[in-house]
Amino acid sequence: MLGAVAVLPMLPKLVGTAVAQAQIAPLASWNDGPAKRAILDFVRMTTDLASPSFVPSAERIATFDQDGTLWVEHPMYAQVIYCLDRVPAVVKAKPELAKVPAFETVLSGNREAIANLPPDDLEEILVATLTGMSVDDFEAEAEKWLETAKDPRWKRPYTDLTYLPMQEVLQYLRANGYKTYIVTGGGQDFVRVYADRTYGIPPEQVVGTAAGTKYGYDNAGKPFLTKEPKLLLNDNNAGKPEGIHLMTGRRPYIAFGNSTGDRQMLEYTKAGDGTRMSLLVLHDDAQREYAYGPAQGLPDTKVGAFPQTLYDQAKTQGWTVISMKNDWNRIFAF
Amino acid sequence: MLGAVAVLPMLPKLVGTAVAQAQIAPLASWNDGPAKRAILDFVRMTTDLASPSFVPSAERIATFDQDGTLWVEHPMYAQVIYCLDRVPAVVKAKPELAKVPAFETVLSGNREAIANLPPDDLEEILVATLTGMSVDDFEAEAEKWLETAKDPRWKRPYTDLTYLPMQEVLQYLRANGYKTYIVTGGGQDFVRVYADRTYGIPPEQVVGTAAGTKYGYDNAGKPFLTKEPKLLLNDNNAGKPEGIHLMTGRRPYIAFGNSTGDRQMLEYTKAGDGTRMSLLVLHDDAQREYAYGPAQGLPDTKVGAFPQTLYDQAKTQGWTVISMKNDWNRIFAF
Repeated sequence: MLGAVAVLPMLPKLVGTAVAQAQIAPLASWNDGPAKRAILDFVRMTTDLASPSFVPSAERIATFDQDGTLWVEHPMYAQVIYCLDRVPAVVKAKPELAKVPAFETVLSGNREAIANLPPDDLEEILVATLTGMSVDDFEAEAEKWLETAKDPRWKRPYTDLTYLPMQEVLQYLRANGYKTYIVTGGGQDFVRVYADRTYGIPPEQVVGTAAGTKYGYDNAGKPFLTKEPKLLLNDNNAGKPEGIHLMTGRRPYIAFGNSTGDRQMLEYTKAGDGTRMSLLVLHDDAQREYAYGPAQGLPDTKVGAFPQTLYDQAKTQGWTVISMKNDWNRIFAF
Repeated sequence: MLGAVAVLPMLPKLVGTAVAQAQIAPLASWNDGPAKRAILDFVRMTTDLASPSFVPSAERIATFDQDGTLWVEHPMYAQVIYCLDRVPAVVKAKPELAKVPAFETVLSGNREAIANLPPDDLEEILVATLTGMSVDDFEAEAEKWLETAKDPRWKRPYTDLTYLPMQEVLQYLRANGYKTYIVTGGGQDFVRVYADRTYGIPPEQVVGTAAGTKYGYDNAGKPFLTKEPKLLLNDNNAGKPEGIHLMTGRRPYIAFGNSTGDRQMLEYTKAGDGTRMSLLVLHDDAQREYAYGPAQGLPDTKVGAFPQTLYDQAKTQGWTVISMKNDWNRIFAF
């Protein structure tokens, strides 16, 4: 570790310490336990030409859920906060919305009421703030928000709240010929705005919940796409393997998730021929991050639902459970 | 050229002469005319770091229509022939279909009646032959067909009927950091079966008309996806830029098409910031391939409709028209 730190100032274009560490020893933020060993074994078995489980590099697909798997999802998904933050601007443009209950609640600033918005009301907010504008305008708005918005607990931009051990896994898999994809229940276009600079994952490798777009022309006759309030892909639950097929035509060899929304992706991955691996991140570190799901015997939470049945399925089907508390010696790069 | 031929036997894993030619002189099957020069200029301008039009490699996206742009589409799309060929097996599995007019026509073997199937009847055939089976079974069926089916004019597998000059463009763009995509009105899953070995384009870089899939379990509890008779993306006309956005989140820098179904993709590409290029293949070589569209003053054909308005738009908006007759010194590798 001292060696890595000493070398740091000499590395050009260094993106955080994660890169340097990955170059020295893979998965440095992982404790030497069963999860780390299983990942190293999997990569060795699927990339060693002499191994019976060898996978040609073109077929090496790795998929990662985002919220709760690559970055913090509690107490509220970053994208939902984005949508809530956009409400004043949307109401300003359409004043009649101020009288609609969902918008009234958000404008009231009542945190508890906002946190408990009924699903239909929340959907109304999401549709109003995520559709109806051009693809380029949406990207510019999201970009602006990401530059200034901060998580209330760590007082840092949301894109800082990625898990260092998972960043190391992304880098390690890529260094071994794996193509890394995000497969998120969140908005495909939203995640694409920051996925490249945050995870090194380009927009074409982000699969997410997607609204349709509509082709049209501006006043000067220039073509552009408008985000439509029409759900094309609900990239949750069964929608994850369906979305992966739509976007890649392949079955992943390794997949990471952390909640019931990832269940089918993990099943589907693990059930493929040859050596496949599914991993489940368990949020059991209340001190350094959060503890929810079976770790605390908690009931299903709104965010990151992880019932006991999911844990049991992991054990039965041979998925690897990652304990944030025991498997990770660091959580964040900061 | 003598040099290239002499070197051939020494090159390992050589995929046709196209590769060797591309290594020696790019676009060797192109005559030295305006189309070839425009492509070479475009690549130089967008890849030279010193050029004001330089494009970072991650953003270098090239999109290609398939039927009529990368391979022969006349007199009937290969995929439609596949569907027609599948009819006996489908009727065998569901004998009640034998009485349905669309299937009756196909089973009759009456070539003229089959060629003139009403659109609704044809759609019935496509749905019955392309959906309702698992993704894996579909792939195996299509694979089997491709191995044996032959084009009636050239008596060769359909995958041999790709245009050598376009294969050279694919290779040349990739050698210059471009990611090449097929953007086809044809079935996404169908084209994925052969795109990699035929064009070097992996399944995740095929955007096409896509049916939804449905996640489920077989009797042994193993998860699999079934192709559903539910249209998710009609990748024609405005559906092309919409599909490109869905699958990549980017606007292409260069796009190739040959019919009205490509109009919006070509407009959209050309209208982007910086230096962009749109190209239109004109089928004007009745002897070596086919002549249709404005080249022959023909009315709109069922396959590869290319009205005069498309030609006019190419001229107005600065798209490059590729004359198969004048721009290509060879059409096929065989």
